Amino acid sequence: MSELRLNLITREWVIIAKERAKRPEDFRVKSERPTLPPFSETCPFCPGNEKRTPSETFSLKDEKGWKIRVMPNKFSALSLEGERTRENGGIKRTLSGVGIHEVIVETSFHNMTTAILPLNQVEDILRVYRERFVEAYKDPRVEHVIIFKNQGERAGTSIEHPHSQLVGLPVTPIQVRMRMDEAIRFFDDTGDCLMCKTLKDELQEGARIIMETEHFVAFIPYAALSPFHIWVFPRRHNPSFEGITDEEINDLARIMKTTLGKVYFGLDNPDFNYTIRSMRPIIGNVEFFHWYLSIVPRVYQTSGFEMGTGMYINMALPEDSAEFLRSIDVK
Amino acid sequence: MSELRLNLITREWVIIAKERAKRPEDFRVKSERPTLPPFSETCPFCPGNEKRTPSETFSLKDEKGWKIRVMPNKFSALSLEGERTRENGGIKRTLSGVGIHEVIVETSFHNMTTAILPLNQVEDILRVYRERFVEAYKDPRVEHVIIFKNQGERAGTSIEHPHSQLVGLPVTPIQVRMRMDEAIRFFDDTGDCLMCKTLKDELQEGARIIMETEHFVAFIPYAALSPFHIWVFPRRHNPSFEGITDEEINDLARIMKTTLGKVYFGLDNPDFNYTIRSMRPIIGNVEFFHWYLSIVPRVYQTSGFEMGTGMYINMALPEDSAEFLRSIDVK
Repeated sequence: MSELRLNLITREWVIIAKERAKRPEDFRVKSERPTLPPFSETCPFCPGNEKRTPSETFSLKDEKGWKIRVMPNKFSALSLEGERTRENGGIKRTLSGVGIHEVIVETSFHNMTTAILPLNQVEDILRVYRERFVEAYKDPRVEHVIIFKNQGERAGTSIEHPHSQLVGLPVTPIQVRMRMDEAIRFFDDTGDCLMCKTLKDELQEGARIIMETEHFVAFIPYAALSPFHIWVFPRRHNPSFEGITDEEINDLARIMKTTLGKVYFGLDNPDFNYTIRSMRPIIGNVEFFHWYLSIVPRVYQTSGFEMGTGMYINMALPEDSAEFLRSIDVK
Repeated sequence: MSELRLNLITREWVIIAKERAKRPEDFRVKSERPTLPPFSETCPFCPGNEKRTPSETFSLKDEKGWKIRVMPNKFSALSLEGERTRENGGIKRTLSGVGIHEVIVETSFHNMTTAILPLNQVEDILRVYRERFVEAYKDPRVEHVIIFKNQGERAGTSIEHPHSQLVGLPVTPIQVRMRMDEAIRFFDDTGDCLMCKTLKDELQEGARIIMETEHFVAFIPYAALSPFHIWVFPRRHNPSFEGITDEEINDLARIMKTTLGKVYFGLDNPDFNYTIRSMRPIIGNVEFFHWYLSIVPRVYQTSGFEMGTGMYINMALPEDSAEFLRSIDVK
């Protein structure tokens, strides 16, 4: 019989199809991928083609040139200029599309991915995330900032060159608000941070842990929404990504690179997304919320069921997925 | 500049990328599709292969055999047998995976789709939906019933033979609950049913209407989540799909077939999902909620942005999409 598991953080019931569950190996990418060149003349993110993108707003350089480059998205969903204005009428609620939409080019090499980047490059990327995250919140029109990465077509990008994006939204999405509300409710009920409690329980049980480092834990959630859905939680209670220390950044780089390496080698380089879920920068403490990183390999396809209910059917047993990823050696 | 529009029913802000918007023609399916045979020996849903599926629970027949066939899903996500039991402990909330998961084979022909089925066949399909919908709610373990169709791989199915599915869930998904809450809140505020009010405003403005029939209106919502996202609303206030009359069913069949025909011919047969959003069967009236049909052509790919925020970026202007579909003649 299958099992319904409640994801306390997303507040969604997930159907874990225990009987129909596939083996971890079955999620391996089947199709052959073309081997990419280290440099592509037609790629707007490759060195030498800087003129094909808007001017950079930030970069990290060494003697050979830029290592990481940040610029407004050429096909920005939001305008950097302009006021946040609103029109209401009947059922219409309209807001001017202002805010921030940045591209973070993660490396000058065209044919890279997080799993195989040098560790210090991943550290630098995370430092740039932190810098841009704090910077974006200084814009008074911005209510919520999301940092995410799309790798591969199934993950929503056709650009091969490794990049991530930052969007500073003029609204707080209802999904984000709902999760905050649920975390507050849990805190009211129990006096615990929901994420701290989740981490504590996951560590105690151990069956879904992928790996641990000094400051972080990577695991498959008890009610993982999809196969190989991974959460990376900081051990230290910290509501906002802004508060991550340099030491923690180095440690996060290591756990991200290794975890994504396990996915890369174990599942033959599937497309994936990751996203940082965080509160805005704060002064002082917020006890009920705890930032984290969510990684979603795109090894499934949503159907009308997910669309119509918001629920998921997960064809992989989280315990099996974790065991499989633990067994993949990326040294 | 782009525009943010609040979808009052889903309660999500959608970024309508006005400046970057593509032309309706740009969403046409590019790839060549194989021509399907009317019968496939390897298809479990084709006549003659009935033994390869579980026994039927319902069927419509004529002198030549079955016209529509309903059976438990062979790869059911939920067990038809068993009690709804629960285990709580720490962060774990677990429910036994019991409920209903049925397949509705829509026709004996392998190579059909709603747009090109005979009208009376679509009417029959809808009558079967109503019958199974009411039947499913008689199961005391079932809290919420969803009917949906996946057509094509991008829509989450690899089975070509036209079919839809019904899932009777032992929980009410939070997405469904949230929409109910928002509809109640709107009713509290205004005294109107949110869907009646939406329909009234859409009809008054007219720019996003695709077509009207005596009992139904098909339109692109003001804050459509994705390109060519279509809602079909009954004009008569009716909370539950169970209450649809035979006359309304015939009319719904016509508007579904025609609207999906416009999508089929106008966009070269994209994969799509549809789902019926409805309250459970009720006695008496509920003023705040109104059932409807949602159609989503899969002409876009979600990215880390949608995943991390629950929001959408729509690259098509709803007014343009509606105008385009209005112009497609499917006679």
